[in-house]
Amino acid sequence: IRVGYPEVIYCKGKTVEQVTGIVQCMLERNCNILATRADEEMYNAVYNICKDAQYNKTARIITIKRKDISIPESFIAVVTAGTSDIPVAEEAAATAEFLGNRVERIFDVGVAGIHRLFSRIDIIRAAKVVVVVAGMEGALASVVAGLIDKPVIAVPTSVGYGANFGGLSALLTMLNSCASGVSVVNIDNGFGAGYLSSMINKL
Amino acid sequence: IRVGYPEVIYCKGKTVEQVTGIVQCMLERNCNILATRADEEMYNAVYNICKDAQYNKTARIITIKRKDISIPESFIAVVTAGTSDIPVAEEAAATAEFLGNRVERIFDVGVAGIHRLFSRIDIIRAAKVVVVVAGMEGALASVVAGLIDKPVIAVPTSVGYGANFGGLSALLTMLNSCASGVSVVNIDNGFGAGYLSSMINKL
Amino acid sequence: IRVGYPEVIYCKGKTVEQVTGIVQCMLERNCNILATRADEEMYNAVYNICKDAQYNKTARIITIKRKDISIPESFIAVVTAGTSDIPVAEEAAATAEFLGNRVERIFDVGVAGIHRLFSRIDIIRAAKVVVVVAGMEGALASVVAGLIDKPVIAVPTSVGYGANFGGLSALLTMLNSCASGVSVVNIDNGFGAGYLSSMINKL
Amino acid sequence: IRVGYPEVIYCKGKTVEQVTGIVQCMLERNCNILATRADEEMYNAVYNICKDAQYNKTARIITIKRKDISIPESFIAVVTAGTSDIPVAEEAAATAEFLGNRVERIFDVGVAGIHRLFSRIDIIRAAKVVVVVAGMEGALASVVAGLIDKPVIAVPTSVGYGANFGGLSALLTMLNSCASGVSVVNIDNGFGAGYLSSMINKL
Amino acid sequence: IRVGYPEVIYCKGKTVEQVTGIVQCMLERNCNILATRADEEMYNAVYNICKDAQYNKTARIITIKRKDISIPESFIAVVTAGTSDIPVAEEAAATAEFLGNRVERIFDVGVAGIHRLFSRIDIIRAAKVVVVVAGMEGALASVVAGLIDKPVIAVPTSVGYGANFGGLSALLTMLNSCASGVSVVNIDNGFGAGYLSSMINKL
Amino acid sequence: IRVGYPEVIYCKGKTVEQVTGIVQCMLERNCNILATRADEEMYNAVYNICKDAQYNKTARIITIKRKDISIPESFIAVVTAGTSDIPVAEEAAATAEFLGNRVERIFDVGVAGIHRLFSRIDIIRAAKVVVVVAGMEGALASVVAGLIDKPVIAVPTSVGYGANFGGLSALLTMLNSCASGVSVVNIDNGFGAGYLSSMINKL
Amino acid sequence: IRVGYPEVIYCKGKTVEQVTGIVQCMLERNCNILATRADEEMYNAVYNICKDAQYNKTARIITIKRKDISIPESFIAVVTAGTSDIPVAEEAAATAEFLGNRVERIFDVGVAGIHRLFSRIDIIRAAKVVVVVAGMEGALASVVAGLIDKPVIAVPTSVGYGANFGGLSALLTMLNSCASGVSVVNIDNGFGAGYLSSMINKL
Amino acid sequence: IRVGYPEVIYCKGKTVEQVTGIVQCMLERNCNILATRADEEMYNAVYNICKDAQYNKTARIITIKRKDISIPESFIAVVTAGTSDIPVAEEAAATAEFLGNRVERIFDVGVAGIHRLFSRIDIIRAAKVVVVVAGMEGALASVVAGLIDKPVIAVPTSVGYGANFGGLSALLTMLNSCASGVSVVNIDNGFGAGYLSSMINKL
Ligand SMILES: Nc1ncnc2c1ncn2[C@@H]1O[C@H](COP(=O)(O)O)[C@@H](O)[C@H]1O
Ligand SMILES: Nc1ncnc2c1ncn2[C@@H]1O[C@H](COP(=O)(O)O)[C@@H](O)[C@H]1O
Ligand SMILES: Nc1ncnc2c1ncn2[C@@H]1O[C@H](COP(=O)(O)O)[C@@H](O)[C@H]1O
Ligand SMILES: Nc1ncnc2c1ncn2[C@@H]1O[C@H](COP(=O)(O)O)[C@@H](O)[C@H]1O
Ligand SMILES: [Mg+2]
Ligand SMILES: [Mg+2]
Ligand SMILES: [Mg+2]
Ligand SMILES: [Mg+2]
Ligand SMILES: [Mg+2]
Ligand SMILES: [Mg+2]
Ligand SMILES: [Mg+2]
Ligand SMILES: [Mg+2]
Repeated sequence: IRVGYPEVIYCKGKTVEQVTGIVQCMLERNCNILATRADEEMYNAVYNICKDAQYNKTARIITIKRKDISIPESFIAVVTAGTSDIPVAEEAAATAEFLGNRVERIFDVGVAGIHRLFSRIDIIRAAKVVVVVAGMEGALASVVAGLIDKPVIAVPTSVGYGANFGGLSALLTMLNSCASGVSVVNIDNGFGAGYLSSMINKL
Repeated sequence: IRVGYPEVIYCKGKTVEQVTGIVQCMLERNCNILATRADEEMYNAVYNICKDAQYNKTARIITIKRKDISIPESFIAVVTAGTSDIPVAEEAAATAEFLGNRVERIFDVGVAGIHRLFSRIDIIRAAKVVVVVAGMEGALASVVAGLIDKPVIAVPTSVGYGANFGGLSALLTMLNSCASGVSVVNIDNGFGAGYLSSMINKL
Repeated sequence: IRVGYPEVIYCKGKTVEQVTGIVQCMLERNCNILATRADEEMYNAVYNICKDAQYNKTARIITIKRKDISIPESFIAVVTAGTSDIPVAEEAAATAEFLGNRVERIFDVGVAGIHRLFSRIDIIRAAKVVVVVAGMEGALASVVAGLIDKPVIAVPTSVGYGANFGGLSALLTMLNSCASGVSVVNIDNGFGAGYLSSMINKL
Repeated sequence: IRVGYPEVIYCKGKTVEQVTGIVQCMLERNCNILATRADEEMYNAVYNICKDAQYNKTARIITIKRKDISIPESFIAVVTAGTSDIPVAEEAAATAEFLGNRVERIFDVGVAGIHRLFSRIDIIRAAKVVVVVAGMEGALASVVAGLIDKPVIAVPTSVGYGANFGGLSALLTMLNSCASGVSVVNIDNGFGAGYLSSMINKL
Repeated sequence: IRVGYPEVIYCKGKTVEQVTGIVQCMLERNCNILATRADEEMYNAVYNICKDAQYNKTARIITIKRKDISIPESFIAVVTAGTSDIPVAEEAAATAEFLGNRVERIFDVGVAGIHRLFSRIDIIRAAKVVVVVAGMEGALASVVAGLIDKPVIAVPTSVGYGANFGGLSALLTMLNSCASGVSVVNIDNGFGAGYLSSMINKL
Repeated sequence: IRVGYPEVIYCKGKTVEQVTGIVQCMLERNCNILATRADEEMYNAVYNICKDAQYNKTARIITIKRKDISIPESFIAVVTAGTSDIPVAEEAAATAEFLGNRVERIFDVGVAGIHRLFSRIDIIRAAKVVVVVAGMEGALASVVAGLIDKPVIAVPTSVGYGANFGGLSALLTMLNSCASGVSVVNIDNGFGAGYLSSMINKL
Repeated sequence: IRVGYPEVIYCKGKTVEQVTGIVQCMLERNCNILATRADEEMYNAVYNICKDAQYNKTARIITIKRKDISIPESFIAVVTAGTSDIPVAEEAAATAEFLGNRVERIFDVGVAGIHRLFSRIDIIRAAKVVVVVAGMEGALASVVAGLIDKPVIAVPTSVGYGANFGGLSALLTMLNSCASGVSVVNIDNGFGAGYLSSMINKL
Repeated sequence: IRVGYPEVIYCKGKTVEQVTGIVQCMLERNCNILATRADEEMYNAVYNICKDAQYNKTARIITIKRKDISIPESFIAVVTAGTSDIPVAEEAAATAEFLGNRVERIFDVGVAGIHRLFSRIDIIRAAKVVVVVAGMEGALASVVAGLIDKPVIAVPTSVGYGANFGGLSALLTMLNSCASGVSVVNIDNGFGAGYLSSMINKL
């Protein structure tokens, strides 16, 4: 249905044979391909059947490009609270880039040291849409949304321990944001945020 | 910060005196005003100090308009699964309209009778952004997102009983959507969805 | 009590010695035997004492057939939303087949691409009872039940991550189905669905 | 879609005007009508526009009959653990009867006094499908399913207090049943159980 | 044990007779008395037996002073995110004041408009200990703690709806704070925060 | 405080050095010693310093006997629903035996095949106190308590999967038992049940 | 089954007609009758058909005595943490007394002021079995069990607010007690504790 | 912002390269460094670039000292309920010591044997602030707070099994403490408690 968009494969819970089979079949239709949650073993298998497959190790994403996608002027900001949130943020950023978007990364600007956020706020404000990735208490999404006038896509991460209950604390924080303009995707769902931010950036 | 946008008052947990006080003070600054979760008693008190205050009973929203807002060509679709989801949907629609948007209402097209959805899919596809409001199992957001290429803002409602646990079932369904382009706001948060859809519609 | 039905062993939490002991004892009574949640080590041990033991690796099921079971005309449809749901679906299908039923498999027809479901709906409608296996948001059960007039046995799976909380999201979705004719078994309980669908198919 | 079946209205969360409007519109199409979760005020309003509307107070169900439905030989057993489970059981029984089924009621045979169950087990065994309604610990569904060879539809109720958490305890008990042939509907969902049992009884 | 400190009565769940009985008995020992969670009916009954009983309606606190308490130089800051958090904040402030402390109130400075917080940060920084009261996403505690070097006592409130689950969202946010120096008391427990802040202010 | 009773060591979360240190120190005071949750490595280390240490592998219990304990005439029945519950049941039984009690084991009599329970009910009825160990739906405790007039100590186990949530389903079932005379210990807490049953058996 | 024991009626969820009907029918069999969770309206209806019906308002219990029950020498101690726990404690105490036991009440000895517990510990130690009733953090059960050598039946109450989640906090505390000899009944289940303590006291 | 205080690194979820990079960069600014949740591999890598890095294995903390910190007269008491709570307690104690505080350790004084607590209560009372570390039922915090007049920082630990749900039971217990002066940090958050206790000890 979605012309120009890549086919997407979610690798977790699939065997190497299943994934390479799907890739093979898509290559025949000359699609762009994006495979998420792929470990290195998966990449090697895909590389064996397609030598221009690329691997983003931090994002755990495999990409194969067959068709060009036009890139708009406007850009997407991807913001994280901490260092440990980077893999999820990279999943979002790499997804958005592969879908044909410029992405600015603003990492490690969590609310415990809010001056770091303020020193980067201009670039965030200039974006058309902002992805905020945060674990533990997840407060960054509200603070960012209060400072800007663009849609904020909040991605809770499972980073933390104890009463974060696998990302539940950040998820609830973000759902209850008292700042307007925030919506939320699943815990650790960098792909979903990247995809949606691309949709919005291309409106 | 947000030029041209109304001031917003969340009435629940505030006394009539607090709300009328805030309204008075905003009127002096000549703002547009939007008050959500307002019952009729609240409206009467506001009406007493401002005779052009309007009340949308289903949406439980009071509006006072002092400045015109420009309205874009594109429109927002607000979709519900059932009849009982209408109050939340109206909160979204009325919010978006007051913020200066055209809104199309497509109500009562839940997945249990999917032909109703298909008979309305063209108008939904023509929207720039779609708000999907659903309680009980909340499956409608995924189905709609699978059929269109625009951002879907999913609003879980507390409609249902038993194992819906006050809207938790629809919330989890929507967060776990396997269709791309879906993000979620809080249970029953029609205002948030209306505000965000307006933001996106005006990009 | 159940004449003609196999004895069933749930292997998880049992030692190899316990399982082979039970098998030995059943073989003496000349029963059909179905052992679920069996890994390959378990199968090898059973094979050692019974050379006609069969192993369905995807379904993790061991079967030993000693008596014929009559097979009705009508059939059971087993439907999955995604590829990762197949092991649970196979557990259901293999159970139903061993209990003496014809089974049609309709895999990978989840709601994110609902045209795939529609292209297979005729075979689903022809079944006497339908098992729907889905993880993540689990919306497929409602959509299928809305399209057909036969009992739907919904099996939530633990496929997913984050706010799926080990299958809870799909479970709640299915329990709150607004389509009539749906009932639910435990998360990942392919065996239970297979058994019950056989019961209904033989009514 | 479902020929011969009544139109169903779920009254909770609908206004009197909405329900009577829907009823009016269905009467014009000469449908059988079943309205669930209806209080007396709702019934009075429906009665005003349709003098042959019937009200089952315990079940909170309004029925209007315009077409005959054929009734099979086989019957449905509706079983409850306690006295307080009767309203949910009646919702199931009245639904099934209106859909054209013979129903046997076996009430107050909970596991704390299992001899009461055994004294009624023959009638339960003779049914084609059994609905088991139980709150608190919900153990009755497993015990019944262990004693019979027919499908058991388990309905957890919200009867109880404290750690029953609004029916969660009975729900989890029934989902984890170690007896084969049990499936579960939502907490207090007598309608769903009645509808599904009718579907199975007519196979 | 605690010399100079008032006797404290938690009124909820106690009858008027029980509370006045306890008050009578404490008055005979010439104690200062603090009664929390007291409605106006309770106050009237206490006033009847003790004409110098004071009532703080917002805080729902009754106080009777019989002995002077010395007040330190340093002060406690009580900060709220929103207007609806004020009753809980007043419970904290009134408790601390009655225990012999100077209290500065900084209300309505939540993170959605963070400039309001920055315009008040100097007075917050000057306090010896800070109580932060916030509902919904509860992000304020982390932001404040990141800006100051004094202990922050975080009080989650039940203000909000939907996925705030009665204050759970704010509670988890605060427990997972990535800023150092934050500890948490029970949801809505203004008394506990006021008492502890007094303890720390007097060290 | 408890004369004649053994010292008890809970090994989980302790190092081998910590446990052998504690054992050494107790041996000097000539105590009977019971160490629970001990793996074989732990046993070997204890055996090295005390050659008459015994190991019950199923129960994961180490015992060292230095003093005799008198054994009452009456006995304790330990009952399980399934085979997988036996390790927890053995922990209870071995604890009770070491504390000086006669124990009767009645295993694998779960409610899915209730005739197995009835064939053993006389020995259960003859006990002074009964320990019922069950996972999954945990219904056995209610059924047993309904059949006898003695205290039932219910032990939920974590046996099961999916919606048993690590033993939560059996725990809630047992807490909500509608049969009188049932009390509950922690999930998998065979030791606690064995200790308490000994206390009651010696009254 | 239980000779000499009263018939028990749980009134919640039953109509006045249902309860008086059951009472009438039991009176004909000359039973002792205990009706729990009865409000005053229920009592008045019962009193109308049986003039010697007694009502314990705090415990919400109706009793009708027709046969004498022998009372053992030993006694039951019923202990509460706070004043608000008394209704549940009275349900336990009144149940045990009606079943033929001596009961000692030791109220308001919670752990926040542990000297109150120590001043009453001798009478607690002299009991044959101890019922501990506590809400909020529920710590009293562990402390008592650590000080005595008799069975402790712990009753969590729903007293508290916020993160006590309707009694969940006290329930979990009691289930995780690190003191031996503790078992737990449902939240607010004074009847269950009274019944079980009577069983144990009469062993 | 915090003069004299060390830079803190939370190692979990960071690669060895990330941590050594951060350390390198801090060393250039001549900071004191505290790295928490560090395993031995992490320590070895840090040691390689800084030979005076120290490792506290139990606390899993790496420290590098470059500047002296003044130590107040008053001290912090760190108290544990059990032996298994020691790693978390050591994280608290080692943090507080490195921040420049005297710490007294009072370990293994849980409420099941409350005489052990009483024999150490004088040293606890002499502290300026008390950290209480406890798992399972977590009752110790309330008991200690009831006996002293100083702030109690409660640290729930994940020690336990079954219905402790990863530390939830101790967390809820501590949040619901009926003793005044208790506040709570995240489950297993020894660092947070150590940091806050240092803040308070230096007021
Ligand atoms: N008591 C009930 N519980 C659950 N679902 C119901 C109930 N009563 C009716 N329904 C379903 O709700 C649908 C009607 O919903 P509505 O269009 O909102 O009136 C029916 O087709 C039934 O599938
Ligand atoms: N609002 C409150 N929230 C929590 N605890 C309170 C509150 N008010 C009083 N308390 C505590 O409850 C104790 C009094 O309880 P009680 O003896 O039941 O009146 C006091 O010593 C306080 O520690
Ligand atoms: N307050 C109570 N809490 C829990 N169970 C109760 C209570 N009162 C009575 N019961 C139990 O409920 C049974 C009676 O239930 P029913 O037949 O519904 O009246 C009795 O035999 C008791 O075992
Ligand atoms: N064990 C811990 N638990 C919770 N927070 C910690 C812990 N160790 C360090 N932190 C916090 O995490 C911050 C460092 O996080 P990061 O920048 O990700 O290394 C510090 O400033 C502390 O506030
Ligand atoms: Mg904004
Ligand atoms: Mg789409
Ligand atoms: Mg259908
Ligand atoms: Mg059966
Ligand atoms: Mg700070
Ligand atoms: Mg019994
Ligand atoms: Mg004891
Ligand atoms: Mg204290």
